[in-house]
Amino acid sequence: MVGHAFMGTVHSQAWRTVNHAFDLPAQVELAAVCGRDHERVAAAAQRLGWDTHLTDWRELVARDDIDVIDICTPGDSHAKIAIAALEAGKHVLCEKPLANSVEEARAMVAAADKARQAGVRSACGFNYRRVPALSLLRNMIEGGRLGRIRHVRAAYLQDWITDPDFPLVWRLRKEVAGSGALGDIGAHIIDLAQYLTGDRLTGVCGLSETFVKERPLPGAPTGGLSAQGADGAPRGEVTVDDASLFLGRFAGGALASFEATRFATGRRNALRLEINGSLGSAAFDLERLNELEFLDATQPVAEQGFRRILVTEPEHPYMAAWWPPGHIIGYEHTFTHEVRDLVEAIVSERDPRPSFADALQVQLVLDAVERSAAAGSAWTPVPAGDDLPATA
Amino acid sequence: MVGHAFMGTVHSQAWRTVNHAFDLPAQVELAAVCGRDHERVAAAAQRLGWDTHLTDWRELVARDDIDVIDICTPGDSHAKIAIAALEAGKHVLCEKPLANSVEEARAMVAAADKARQAGVRSACGFNYRRVPALSLLRNMIEGGRLGRIRHVRAAYLQDWITDPDFPLVWRLRKEVAGSGALGDIGAHIIDLAQYLTGDRLTGVCGLSETFVKERPLPGAPTGGLSAQGADGAPRGEVTVDDASLFLGRFAGGALASFEATRFATGRRNALRLEINGSLGSAAFDLERLNELEFLDATQPVAEQGFRRILVTEPEHPYMAAWWPPGHIIGYEHTFTHEVRDLVEAIVSERDPRPSFADALQVQLVLDAVERSAAAGSAWTPVPAGDDLPATA
Amino acid sequence: MVGHAFMGTVHSQAWRTVNHAFDLPAQVELAAVCGRDHERVAAAAQRLGWDTHLTDWRELVARDDIDVIDICTPGDSHAKIAIAALEAGKHVLCEKPLANSVEEARAMVAAADKARQAGVRSACGFNYRRVPALSLLRNMIEGGRLGRIRHVRAAYLQDWITDPDFPLVWRLRKEVAGSGALGDIGAHIIDLAQYLTGDRLTGVCGLSETFVKERPLPGAPTGGLSAQGADGAPRGEVTVDDASLFLGRFAGGALASFEATRFATGRRNALRLEINGSLGSAAFDLERLNELEFLDATQPVAEQGFRRILVTEPEHPYMAAWWPPGHIIGYEHTFTHEVRDLVEAIVSERDPRPSFADALQVQLVLDAVERSAAAGSAWTPVPAGDDLPATA
Amino acid sequence: MVGHAFMGTVHSQAWRTVNHAFDLPAQVELAAVCGRDHERVAAAAQRLGWDTHLTDWRELVARDDIDVIDICTPGDSHAKIAIAALEAGKHVLCEKPLANSVEEARAMVAAADKARQAGVRSACGFNYRRVPALSLLRNMIEGGRLGRIRHVRAAYLQDWITDPDFPLVWRLRKEVAGSGALGDIGAHIIDLAQYLTGDRLTGVCGLSETFVKERPLPGAPTGGLSAQGADGAPRGEVTVDDASLFLGRFAGGALASFEATRFATGRRNALRLEINGSLGSAAFDLERLNELEFLDATQPVAEQGFRRILVTEPEHPYMAAWWPPGHIIGYEHTFTHEVRDLVEAIVSERDPRPSFADALQVQLVLDAVERSAAAGSAWTPVPAGDDLPATA
Repeated sequence: MVGHAFMGTVHSQAWRTVNHAFDLPAQVELAAVCGRDHERVAAAAQRLGWDTHLTDWRELVARDDIDVIDICTPGDSHAKIAIAALEAGKHVLCEKPLANSVEEARAMVAAADKARQAGVRSACGFNYRRVPALSLLRNMIEGGRLGRIRHVRAAYLQDWITDPDFPLVWRLRKEVAGSGALGDIGAHIIDLAQYLTGDRLTGVCGLSETFVKERPLPGAPTGGLSAQGADGAPRGEVTVDDASLFLGRFAGGALASFEATRFATGRRNALRLEINGSLGSAAFDLERLNELEFLDATQPVAEQGFRRILVTEPEHPYMAAWWPPGHIIGYEHTFTHEVRDLVEAIVSERDPRPSFADALQVQLVLDAVERSAAAGSAWTPVPAGDDLPATA
Repeated sequence: MVGHAFMGTVHSQAWRTVNHAFDLPAQVELAAVCGRDHERVAAAAQRLGWDTHLTDWRELVARDDIDVIDICTPGDSHAKIAIAALEAGKHVLCEKPLANSVEEARAMVAAADKARQAGVRSACGFNYRRVPALSLLRNMIEGGRLGRIRHVRAAYLQDWITDPDFPLVWRLRKEVAGSGALGDIGAHIIDLAQYLTGDRLTGVCGLSETFVKERPLPGAPTGGLSAQGADGAPRGEVTVDDASLFLGRFAGGALASFEATRFATGRRNALRLEINGSLGSAAFDLERLNELEFLDATQPVAEQGFRRILVTEPEHPYMAAWWPPGHIIGYEHTFTHEVRDLVEAIVSERDPRPSFADALQVQLVLDAVERSAAAGSAWTPVPAGDDLPATA
Repeated sequence: MVGHAFMGTVHSQAWRTVNHAFDLPAQVELAAVCGRDHERVAAAAQRLGWDTHLTDWRELVARDDIDVIDICTPGDSHAKIAIAALEAGKHVLCEKPLANSVEEARAMVAAADKARQAGVRSACGFNYRRVPALSLLRNMIEGGRLGRIRHVRAAYLQDWITDPDFPLVWRLRKEVAGSGALGDIGAHIIDLAQYLTGDRLTGVCGLSETFVKERPLPGAPTGGLSAQGADGAPRGEVTVDDASLFLGRFAGGALASFEATRFATGRRNALRLEINGSLGSAAFDLERLNELEFLDATQPVAEQGFRRILVTEPEHPYMAAWWPPGHIIGYEHTFTHEVRDLVEAIVSERDPRPSFADALQVQLVLDAVERSAAAGSAWTPVPAGDDLPATA
Repeated sequence: MVGHAFMGTVHSQAWRTVNHAFDLPAQVELAAVCGRDHERVAAAAQRLGWDTHLTDWRELVARDDIDVIDICTPGDSHAKIAIAALEAGKHVLCEKPLANSVEEARAMVAAADKARQAGVRSACGFNYRRVPALSLLRNMIEGGRLGRIRHVRAAYLQDWITDPDFPLVWRLRKEVAGSGALGDIGAHIIDLAQYLTGDRLTGVCGLSETFVKERPLPGAPTGGLSAQGADGAPRGEVTVDDASLFLGRFAGGALASFEATRFATGRRNALRLEINGSLGSAAFDLERLNELEFLDATQPVAEQGFRRILVTEPEHPYMAAWWPPGHIIGYEHTFTHEVRDLVEAIVSERDPRPSFADALQVQLVLDAVERSAAAGSAWTPVPAGDDLPATA
């Protein structure tokens, strides 16, 4: 594993747990974790349960005893690590968004395509596909339970930077993070919208805003080149979007709206989806991830209503591995499901999903939104990558 | 109409509106309202839309031009007014609880039985039977959608007297109100439980509490015989229950719990019901009276869930008279439905429900709860009145 | 009153009720209702409680005994009736949207301005401003409880035409209705967004769709010029939008998204609003119109949460006129509040709100959305009318 | 650990995880698991991550290298294992209910008292005390945020045996499980009610029912002494309650109602609590365990409402160890918190809670309910054990 911050921590929990929850055809070993700072990565290895630790990801890629590389770094290093790992014959799990640009993403897809011919697998970490409620919804839509899709409305609402004195962390710097709310959380709802509908966005129009233009530098010494806040602390420019909104059309004719923001006061992690079809509708909120709201419009009108399916039955995706009905699971379980599916795909020599190509398709939408926002919200077509999700 | 306070006001709204909302076989005229204080009843007649006003209900009963007497007074006067009105050949709508004692209620049933033979009708104002969501639920249970009933849990939670300085109004005095939370709001959930299940309670055990024993007399002069509060205001004894809880068994084998309280801080008017049967369950909350929660246990387990039926479709009871789907109705509409059903029953020479006998059955439960509470919560059978609701 | 269909029915209920619920400085009399078909308007007058009926609105406008004209017709006749009524010195309440075009709306504003100088008042029927929960929210935002507004997300979701065989009623024909979902329900959320924030939209980008292009003609004879459906019934072209979505920016810097659709299966009348500010957030759903969700971000983080305010206290706008706390009101009450405010304004010689100018500002947004949708979602500025809502 | 079924599985997950999530003063090692069947316990050790396995708990207790014994067996073996372990100087975590009888529980308390003098610790596994939302509520009540407690209503609703053909598993046999719904899930809500209020129940009246009297024997051969169902499968008598309901009074004057049932169709694991106090109220549902509903009655009435606190902030109990705000946790985390608190208590030489004495107090309530139910619901005082929870 490369990286041991938030994503590294939760991935570690998944790798440690997966063999205890699922009957897998292989036994996972946590071989080595890699980080830039020797002291911090040593502590992380200890805390997170990794056998060894390193400070150079190239050494990790070079090791013979390692089969899978899990990339948990910021987006600016995804491409180089992933491509090197694939070339070294390592299976790769890469955190989302796949890359910081379409160009990088295309290079990664090319590397993945080449590696695949040698039986080397790759996947992108859109973990919310593995929320059981959303896996269930995917199955229901695929099975025709919602009929023809007319509307997708998706919002990912957070509020962790509403305080203008929240510091200028790496996620607020374009050169590291690629973009702000759009790439970080907007990427999730784009991927989910395309995954759930089995369709792809063909065009978008959007707008973005950075409400707080400058923020205190994290741990910066007083003085320097940067602007200063009222308290004299040095400030730097926020170079990413605080919020991005866009509208879109799907190939199959559905209309969609998307919103990604870090300024939705009181909404801590509200990834909300609603999908309306000719035969039914569904709604979801990540803050209640064990629940799926579903309306079956084929039932008698007097008994219709959105029902709260508590997605904790053994009949539900992934849930036979966990607790009795009504005993809920949490955020981290989505990663356990992700690595379970990855291990199963690798051992059975299948390509895991979402593939790098799936993730490129997300990247193409992100890119189109940014270009639209820069061009006065003009309608901007989204090109198709090589390996499209099937059209519903 | 006799009485023009809260109940009088909302009944007036119903009488004024019913012919505009429903096609009725008769045109309602608001002939006369009766109250004890001349000035206040005159103002009420003007405000509420009554043609004339009186200060003696006996005069009202004696008038030839009046067909229906609507009794909206406190419980201590129900029996005498209702019996006189029935003997005078007037159809009677009497507010709940029917009476302040089983003895009075029995006398009223006897008067109603006698009057019925002369084509004179009577009904008790358990208006919540006319919440469309609950009428729908009654139909669903009667149609077998819930299967065999196992559990009824009912609570009526209010909080309007949690302040110990709230005055000693008539609803807190036994000689006027009969009882406190039990008879006022507990009566509603008893009636609903028996109505919805089509079954009757055969035994109970209960307990009651008066949390605040003395309260300021309303508008009382300083001094006098009563106790005094910290502020020197004269106080009187609260002679009814602030809260009553009881458990019960239905003839059909279901278990039930009931709670009526005026001390549920933050619950303004939360009449909540939940019914579990072998084939399904339902839940209701009066604060969201346009909604019925329903779970159909005959559906595949992976798609089961409590659905929120928005009971605003023309297919739903009473709702064709109102607005398009999704446009909700309010508390007062239950009374409009009540008088609509009453007028239809009178004109078509049918007996309206709930009958005085239905209301006596509620009174018998109230009485059994009080006796149980007085006897250390001992199990106390509930006798059957003459005209039982049918057993499901 | 001109028109006696859905809006006429609910306005009548308001006019009949307002003096019984509120202490008003004038007594309302339901003088005359006007409709095109003699037989139908006669029946309507009887059912809705109007003293007389007419078939020519010009006669109504000419009558000396009438003070107020309430226009409940489709949008294509608003301008001519309203202007004539104002010129005749009648106060006017005109249903929304104000007109079918900006040009008409401007003419109406001019007529209103001129009439105002003679003490003649005019208002547009955006009744949802009178939902107590939204009046409360307006007060809270005005009082600074939400701080600086960052986000408005508004959706008005209905589903009454998802069936492709639903007939081609007047609301689906551009020449009568002006537009489809956009003008009918989108107008409501535009007005509310501007009213609640006290700000105005300065630019938009949008898109529209008509999912079902042709529908059966209502009551049409077989044959004729129109297309035919599978069942041989003659069909006509749907000339309005089934759904419209747009993004916008407010003068004060807030971002907004709007969606109006009649294809949101299972959402009967879901007008949803969420507003995020620097100090708090609020959310609302018309299907639960007695509730306001509010988060106060100034409270300790460990106790923060969206609270469900049950807006039924006497302290809440309009609610002292109705029932005790927790006893909810319905859709029709918003109209009773509307006419109450209108009567009070007229008698006290104040200009009621929303004024025709407020409604013109909505019309300007509708127009900009249509132009944007026609121009590939290009960013389209919204000009300011003469009488802007104040900027927050 | 003794036992490796449902509780053993989830305890193992907790033991494996606790050092990775929390900074603990000791490193947990999963030494040995014990089960009756050699093959099954060997598989369990492998699957759950235990170093070794045994088939005799006495060997486990005798091992020198073990510090803590975690008892996850059915209730009939708790007393003998716990007492032996304590006598051997092992710290003990014992699943709830503590025992199958008051007599056993008293013996266990005596053993715990004796062991304590040698620095040996003991705790009972009422894990729901470690739901962060409930820990928070405990802190809030202790801090006076709810004022004087008036009402507790608690229900634990499940539905896993509504099918009359569900087999006669050990939880349905009195000789193993002690009681049915009452001891299994009723024990949880009794403990929580006493824990959260800091008060104890002083008397109860209750009733119980077994709706399905006989069930198929699990894996039984055809024939034998038992009754036979319609399908000819041998059936045995259900000797425990399917549902138990009771009312109670707390020492501090609060009234309470409790319901534990396995026949609440559609309620998979609905542990619901509501507590009303003079200054506020709170509500909780285990199916949404990351949320606490709280109403602060000291705020202005126009802004009062139950707020949904999403208990995922670092400021909330236990949550700093997990994910960012809004990223929810699951059922298993309550056990991780439980073992974290246990380890901390052991290392710091404090007595963990709930103690065996706390658990005895629950047992005394269970016993009183059973005696009341057997005595026609008669009011039955609950004696105080030796080490009472403090009275609020």
